[in-house]
Amino acid sequence: MELTLVGIGTGKPDHLTLQAVEAIRAADLLLIPEKGEGKQELADLRRRIVAGCVEDDGVRVLSFAMPKRDPAVPDYKTRVKLWHDAIAQAWLDALAPYPEARKIVLLVWGDPALFDSTLRVAERIRKACPLELKVVPGLTSLQVLAASHAIPLNRLAEPFLVTTGRHLREHGWPEGIDTLVVMLDGECSFTTLDPAGVSIWWGAYLGMEGEILDQGALSEAGPRIVEARAETRERRGWIMDIYLLRRETSSASAP
Amino acid sequence: MELTLVGIGTGKPDHLTLQAVEAIRAADLLLIPEKGEGKQELADLRRRIVAGCVEDDGVRVLSFAMPKRDPAVPDYKTRVKLWHDAIAQAWLDALAPYPEARKIVLLVWGDPALFDSTLRVAERIRKACPLELKVVPGLTSLQVLAASHAIPLNRLAEPFLVTTGRHLREHGWPEGIDTLVVMLDGECSFTTLDPAGVSIWWGAYLGMEGEILDQGALSEAGPRIVEARAETRERRGWIMDIYLLRRETSSASAP
Repeated sequence: MELTLVGIGTGKPDHLTLQAVEAIRAADLLLIPEKGEGKQELADLRRRIVAGCVEDDGVRVLSFAMPKRDPAVPDYKTRVKLWHDAIAQAWLDALAPYPEARKIVLLVWGDPALFDSTLRVAERIRKACPLELKVVPGLTSLQVLAASHAIPLNRLAEPFLVTTGRHLREHGWPEGIDTLVVMLDGECSFTTLDPAGVSIWWGAYLGMEGEILDQGALSEAGPRIVEARAETRERRGWIMDIYLLRRETSSASAP
Repeated sequence: MELTLVGIGTGKPDHLTLQAVEAIRAADLLLIPEKGEGKQELADLRRRIVAGCVEDDGVRVLSFAMPKRDPAVPDYKTRVKLWHDAIAQAWLDALAPYPEARKIVLLVWGDPALFDSTLRVAERIRKACPLELKVVPGLTSLQVLAASHAIPLNRLAEPFLVTTGRHLREHGWPEGIDTLVVMLDGECSFTTLDPAGVSIWWGAYLGMEGEILDQGALSEAGPRIVEARAETRERRGWIMDIYLLRRETSSASAP
């Protein structure tokens, strides 16, 4: 069995690469997770992306219900690991009726390498059955954020850190790094920072209908973003967003 | 005038996104830099990518010689900034005979947002003539490295730093971050690190013919990579490579 994880970008069908289109067309079986909780729009978007690639009905599209994390498990990483175990079991259950399928494709938002559990779940599947694992990279929201704002991710010859809202809240802004890209932040963790000298470039629903961008000094743009985020999340039922923070000076950086 | 910077990935024509193909097809004028110094293979690859997208001869492809950095300027960042000024002038000179061109497209390896000077050069152009600037994101070598090795870039819920060989040599491995992705490293800067507990995933010519991958404990894989890099660079006349380093433990990370 060959399992191909296909990164599909952030929801804009023309963000698919030619390689991703080809992998989708070649699939015997396409797995589409159903996440519930206002994510119906995303599952529909996945279906539209597939429909745009596949010209005949030779590809079987299979939905399966994504397990939820167990809030009774207090430790964050343990909770996530148990959740990955449950997802692996859900995949195996979904695949069980189709032992003849050779090429299985699973669509992944963005890129399978970036803050995504699919590779970790696939490793669990590999322990249960022999599997050739392939990855087709896709555009990430980092790239779409930078493209939408027409900005570079890094300052000239300087590094940047890709991190999470949780990590930023718990560890603060690391020494000697002037640019942070923050993902998976449901709590506007930039509000925990001293905004002096910090600029933000924010984007929500990147590449999708209703994309929102804002940018400016964190002291001014920050409160606007907090408000826009709460308002659109309430209205649309869900939000996916990402932002880049850059600070003016640091010991490690020349102007 | 509309200037679109199109990320084309790392050289595999099917890494182009549908959006990139469309932007190339819609161009009045395509700018292709000629870098010389064994980079002819890359310019040819760019031309093949364009030829694969464009079905008729309605798109004018324009080569221009890329200026070189001036080794007489001692400070690295000043040298690079002067070089960007010179590139901007080379673009303007190349475009001058075509005042009727409305849609100019410049192809960028990887993604224009990532360790690339094109956005900075475009800002200089914008100061010389009114310009609508657009960015079409492309796959980066980070993503292709991760896909080729079928590994995630980040550890579960942990950040990663995207940095350069120079920065790694000058600043060492930063505190509290377990994963580094190192780009633009002509000097195998991983050899300056204590290899204990560090693993490396390396890739050269990613997505291109002759892609080379290696991975393992830095103590064992490091010397192999130094040798393979020197040998293939010598044979092929140029090399583009990237690697990911992960260390076992850190104050900031649970196992």
